[in-house]
Amino acid sequence: MNSVITSLWWIAPIASIFALLFAIFFYKKMMSANEGNATMIEIAGHVREGAMAYLMRQYKVVFIVFIVLLIILQALAFAGIQNPFVPIAFLTGGFFSGLCGFIGMKTATAASSRTAQGCSEGLNRGLQVAFRSGAVMGLVVVGFGLLDICIWYFALDKIYSPENMINGVHFLGMEIVPAGCTVTEKLVHMTTTMITFGMGASTQALFARVGGGIYTKAADVGADLVGKVEAGIPEDDPRNPATIADNVGDNVGDVAGMGADLYESYCGSILATAALGAAVGAHHVMNGTGTEADAIGLVTAPMIVAGVGTILSIVGMFMVKCKDGATQKGLLKALLTGTLGSSALIVLALAGMWQLDMISGGIVLSVISGLAAGVIIGQATEYYTSAEFKPTKGIAEQAVMGPATTIIDGLATGMYSTGIPVLTIVVGIICAFGFAGGFSDMSMGLYGIGFAAVGMLATLGITLATDAYGPIADNAGGNAEMAGLPPEVRERTDALDSLGNTTAATGKGFAIGSAALTAMALLAAYIEEVKIWIAKLAGEGMFAGFTAEQAEHAGIMDFVNRFELHIMNPLLLCGLFLGGMMAFVFCAMTMKAVGRAAGAMVEEVRRQFREIPGIMEGTGKPDYASCVAISTKGAQREMLVPSLLAIIVPVVTGLILGVPGVMGLLAGGLTTGFVLATMLNNAGGAWDNAKKHVENGAHGGKGSDAHHAAVVGDTVGDPCKDTSGPSLNILIKLMTMVSIVFTPVVIKFSPVIQEWLHIVTK
Amino acid sequence: MNSVITSLWWIAPIASIFALLFAIFFYKKMMSANEGNATMIEIAGHVREGAMAYLMRQYKVVFIVFIVLLIILQALAFAGIQNPFVPIAFLTGGFFSGLCGFIGMKTATAASSRTAQGCSEGLNRGLQVAFRSGAVMGLVVVGFGLLDICIWYFALDKIYSPENMINGVHFLGMEIVPAGCTVTEKLVHMTTTMITFGMGASTQALFARVGGGIYTKAADVGADLVGKVEAGIPEDDPRNPATIADNVGDNVGDVAGMGADLYESYCGSILATAALGAAVGAHHVMNGTGTEADAIGLVTAPMIVAGVGTILSIVGMFMVKCKDGATQKGLLKALLTGTLGSSALIVLALAGMWQLDMISGGIVLSVISGLAAGVIIGQATEYYTSAEFKPTKGIAEQAVMGPATTIIDGLATGMYSTGIPVLTIVVGIICAFGFAGGFSDMSMGLYGIGFAAVGMLATLGITLATDAYGPIADNAGGNAEMAGLPPEVRERTDALDSLGNTTAATGKGFAIGSAALTAMALLAAYIEEVKIWIAKLAGEGMFAGFTAEQAEHAGIMDFVNRFELHIMNPLLLCGLFLGGMMAFVFCAMTMKAVGRAAGAMVEEVRRQFREIPGIMEGTGKPDYASCVAISTKGAQREMLVPSLLAIIVPVVTGLILGVPGVMGLLAGGLTTGFVLATMLNNAGGAWDNAKKHVENGAHGGKGSDAHHAAVVGDTVGDPCKDTSGPSLNILIKLMTMVSIVFTPVVIKFSPVIQEWLHIVTK
Repeated sequence: MNSVITSLWWIAPIASIFALLFAIFFYKKMMSANEGNATMIEIAGHVREGAMAYLMRQYKVVFIVFIVLLIILQALAFAGIQNPFVPIAFLTGGFFSGLCGFIGMKTATAASSRTAQGCSEGLNRGLQVAFRSGAVMGLVVVGFGLLDICIWYFALDKIYSPENMINGVHFLGMEIVPAGCTVTEKLVHMTTTMITFGMGASTQALFARVGGGIYTKAADVGADLVGKVEAGIPEDDPRNPATIADNVGDNVGDVAGMGADLYESYCGSILATAALGAAVGAHHVMNGTGTEADAIGLVTAPMIVAGVGTILSIVGMFMVKCKDGATQKGLLKALLTGTLGSSALIVLALAGMWQLDMISGGIVLSVISGLAAGVIIGQATEYYTSAEFKPTKGIAEQAVMGPATTIIDGLATGMYSTGIPVLTIVVGIICAFGFAGGFSDMSMGLYGIGFAAVGMLATLGITLATDAYGPIADNAGGNAEMAGLPPEVRERTDALDSLGNTTAATGKGFAIGSAALTAMALLAAYIEEVKIWIAKLAGEGMFAGFTAEQAEHAGIMDFVNRFELHIMNPLLLCGLFLGGMMAFVFCAMTMKAVGRAAGAMVEEVRRQFREIPGIMEGTGKPDYASCVAISTKGAQREMLVPSLLAIIVPVVTGLILGVPGVMGLLAGGLTTGFVLATMLNNAGGAWDNAKKHVENGAHGGKGSDAHHAAVVGDTVGDPCKDTSGPSLNILIKLMTMVSIVFTPVVIKFSPVIQEWLHIVTK
Repeated sequence: MNSVITSLWWIAPIASIFALLFAIFFYKKMMSANEGNATMIEIAGHVREGAMAYLMRQYKVVFIVFIVLLIILQALAFAGIQNPFVPIAFLTGGFFSGLCGFIGMKTATAASSRTAQGCSEGLNRGLQVAFRSGAVMGLVVVGFGLLDICIWYFALDKIYSPENMINGVHFLGMEIVPAGCTVTEKLVHMTTTMITFGMGASTQALFARVGGGIYTKAADVGADLVGKVEAGIPEDDPRNPATIADNVGDNVGDVAGMGADLYESYCGSILATAALGAAVGAHHVMNGTGTEADAIGLVTAPMIVAGVGTILSIVGMFMVKCKDGATQKGLLKALLTGTLGSSALIVLALAGMWQLDMISGGIVLSVISGLAAGVIIGQATEYYTSAEFKPTKGIAEQAVMGPATTIIDGLATGMYSTGIPVLTIVVGIICAFGFAGGFSDMSMGLYGIGFAAVGMLATLGITLATDAYGPIADNAGGNAEMAGLPPEVRERTDALDSLGNTTAATGKGFAIGSAALTAMALLAAYIEEVKIWIAKLAGEGMFAGFTAEQAEHAGIMDFVNRFELHIMNPLLLCGLFLGGMMAFVFCAMTMKAVGRAAGAMVEEVRRQFREIPGIMEGTGKPDYASCVAISTKGAQREMLVPSLLAIIVPVVTGLILGVPGVMGLLAGGLTTGFVLATMLNNAGGAWDNAKKHVENGAHGGKGSDAHHAAVVGDTVGDPCKDTSGPSLNILIKLMTMVSIVFTPVVIKFSPVIQEWLHIVTK
């Protein structure tokens, strides 16, 4: 069972460096583009300042949270109930994620005026600037993600030198390398260490998604309700005091938030799969069905696949081109050529490697399952949210009857739209499981599911580029409007923006789909973590490399597999209820947060219209900064409680209900969260496009009763699709990550487990 | 371990007959009341005719579905892959449920004019007539439910005579009693037979809830949108052609639908607990830790507890009284005295029986856990949906900003409101599990959870009376309005109606809470069913009385407990995803169905206003019957697809994903369904009361902008709280029932199971 040729591992670090080099290349290319006239530069400057100010404020809050968590983790490490590498791994994950957000925002905010200027030169020129700026975000995310993983793998490999594995290493009283450690034990230890840096990325992502989501919708709702509805001025009008905050919001939510979210999924899927590979490898060595080299192959395989995907994503980026005067379909085709082209290249490359016996067929087919699932979910999302298809047209028709029927139909459409994504995920999971050989060896099957996640995210470099492109095009439109550029420029930016709305919807489907698969893989990795810590704390004296036979002997497999994680264990069922509830309550919190923050924004905008003389005539200058400050403060204040809840609940559940309760919580949160997020994203997207459909002239067009009703739908959909829905991606991953990291605490202090330990160790 | 004194079983049939006798008594008492003047009688006649016409149409559809299912079940029985009693048990469950619906509707429609007349004599007189009519529904449900169970128990006990158990009985080639059957085998066989009559009740309830829910909201929305909003005439105005259909809808949805729903929960909880008792009993006899008499005690205990509850519910009914001119609080207190009084009496009675060693302490404490959970969920529901508390007041405040913020805040409030009910259910489950001794004997713990469900439903007689009272008071108000009775009468009916809205909201919380606990118990019973059929089909040659030791020997326990039903089995996880998705898609279907049916109603009402001369002046008579016919036809047409889906999906899932997939589907449907239903019920209730709060003068009162926004919220909430939410109660129970009944089919034909059987039986 030779899963992969181990020497291919070098593809991963090389690909990550390639990605970063191309990011620099694209960044320079974008920066060298014409920045436009003085007004355009000034406006872009406001947005950049606002965005950076927000980012710094957010990082401050995150910094404090990180310090607190770091102290806790370090204390646990000193107490011997935490892996000593965890605190540093946690830090690096968070640091690189934050760095990606910073670079992405810097690029996006620099690109808006350049894209607007590009559009005044031609459509393809505008597309190139916007898309390449998005590509910077895509490439830094995969580049830094993969680099961090490779550095850790390389460093730990050195620390676990043959000599250290014989003698063991201690540092400040903590056991760094256990004496007499075998190769499989080393691999298990390395991967379980590395996985914890996902927790850093998760924590960072949580604040980016939740805070960014609140920021962007508070600004958007505030700008729309007072500016568009009450004052009757168009979108992005410079007289609207909240318009800069609105543009900042696009960057904060859709660039930094989305990037951090997918950074986490990307790292999480690779790390979880590596951890599952280590467990399978150890098992096979013990059974005599595999060698130690095979085990190393199982661990490195996900990194290699990710590396191949990264390189081919870069190739795909160069395929994105359009003709000037291209239609909406032409633009979409240009992007699809890039993303689908990359996917096809990856399939070809892996098939070739399979032919050359460089990688096992099971892995290749699992990867393809994931890739295919990603494409199908994206298409289904488009079907349910694009005004070209029946569901969204149906909502627009209901708008004729009034806002109530618009809402009811949108909710129902959102609920319906969960069908295909769930079926796709289910089929994808079963295919990956089966292809990897799960029906005869369950652990191999779970390893295959990990590869489905890795496969779905293999094209992340280019997929994220198309996502991050959206807010840049949106901002370019804002820039053009505020700078008073000629209407044909605004038409071109509108074409780019409209394309961005489509990619944003499919991108959301992709984000939640990959989050679900990643969480599945992390869930499986969690059980491995539990086994390891139970063995250690049960006095088996082993830290890593806990194997099936030894487990059987200690009655541990029996404990883990049989009674406790049985679906009818009421503790587990209670966990399922709690997980489902968490998804809903978390949504409620983020939704209410948007309401409160938007309320403050509405008041501020009203105040400015009332108090600043000449603002409506364009002679008085609105105070953009105060609106930016209000959104920033609102997001900061509101993001804390839901974020802490997501971190605390898994630990408290574990302490009270034990490991079965945690498993239930995670599985319930994953399944309910996935379905709920899909519903909220798609309902929101459909309402948005139904409104646009009416604005484009259907059912009476702008100003008609149907339009008013459609605007209500759009406003309701805003927090659904841009705050609550996407935040659920993070919730389901973060809860799993927290559970993994706090496994030893739960096992040591949960009374249920204590009781069991008492029986087994009697 | 003597759980209960077996001779106490007689309490159950006696209580059921008592309940039916008191139902007759209350019915006669109500019928002897003054029916009012000729107009009142005429209006009540229209409503009665419409309701009965609908009921007959519904029964026709249900009849066809029953015939089809009966043929399938009978064919399976002849083929030896179904218990031969199942087809008849299925029929009796459906028949009694239908009978309850018929009697309840007959009573409710007869009571409306009499309640209106009672109100013109005094508030207490009105309350008495309405409440006693509700009591008829409550008592026939518990009476017929318990009677059906007792008849089956008695008859099967006779068929399993000592002689027959030695020689065995065959009939038409089907094995009725296996030869050499032991007492524990007999009990297992009896209870697994009886549980299948729950499927009949479930199927009946599905159509009643879904069809009734669609009917009532199509009529309501149609009447409101055209009558109130477009024509500007008040609620229940006789000039509105849809007003009779609206009044019919209250009966169809809230009396017949709610009754069938709770009939199913009531029977399901008792039967599942009896089945779990039989499994525990067989286990204990095998281990030598219990006698056969103990086993009989475990099976009869839930019936005895239900019998005690029934008798004390009747006592509670006589406590419901109010003073004339009582305030809203006084009225509520009158009802609470009855329901809480019954609960307190049950606790006292069971505690007394425990003291006298007539019943075990574990059972008593489990019952109390369920009772307490029911009360807490009811109170939490009231907090989130009553205009006296913050959440609903908050929605009314948001209405000032417009419909969009009203909807967002309502959605968020609904999501928040899932917190306490989930925590209550979780604590209730763990308490019941622990009190029954689950931490040392898991099967006893699951048996305890069954008792929590039985406990929650112990007071059903009176709880359902307070529920069914609501639509009667509502109809009385309609009757008074249409008959042009003096305003003080309408004031009194309004007071009664307003109280009905509160009991309706808490009743919905109670219905979903009890559905969740019942489904939990059924889920545990499902696994017992699986074990039995695996044993039989694996060639162990045993039909009933499959025991732990024998299972261990056949590797079956291992199969059931270890690999296959492990939470990380991907088939099970896929099932969880499917279950969560089913809840959402089922909601989407019922919600869209309301939209379509309401659309047809709107057109008809508009047509009548347009075409019938003098209708607005009161000189032309509207065509009530055609509106009733439209609602009836709409409900019939729309209820079929979602209903069939709920029946087909568990079977198809089982055939493809096997038993683990089914378990996942059921657990996912249960948890997500519970949370989603709670959210929809509470959001709907809160929107409704926020509107009433504004109508009572808050934020500008009737006609203000806030009022318009609040009306939008109320309209969105209507299908949520009266169609989709309550239908989920049925979905989660019915899917489990279908799985139980089709267990042998799934086990025989599912390829996964086949493969396993092949390995085990090699």
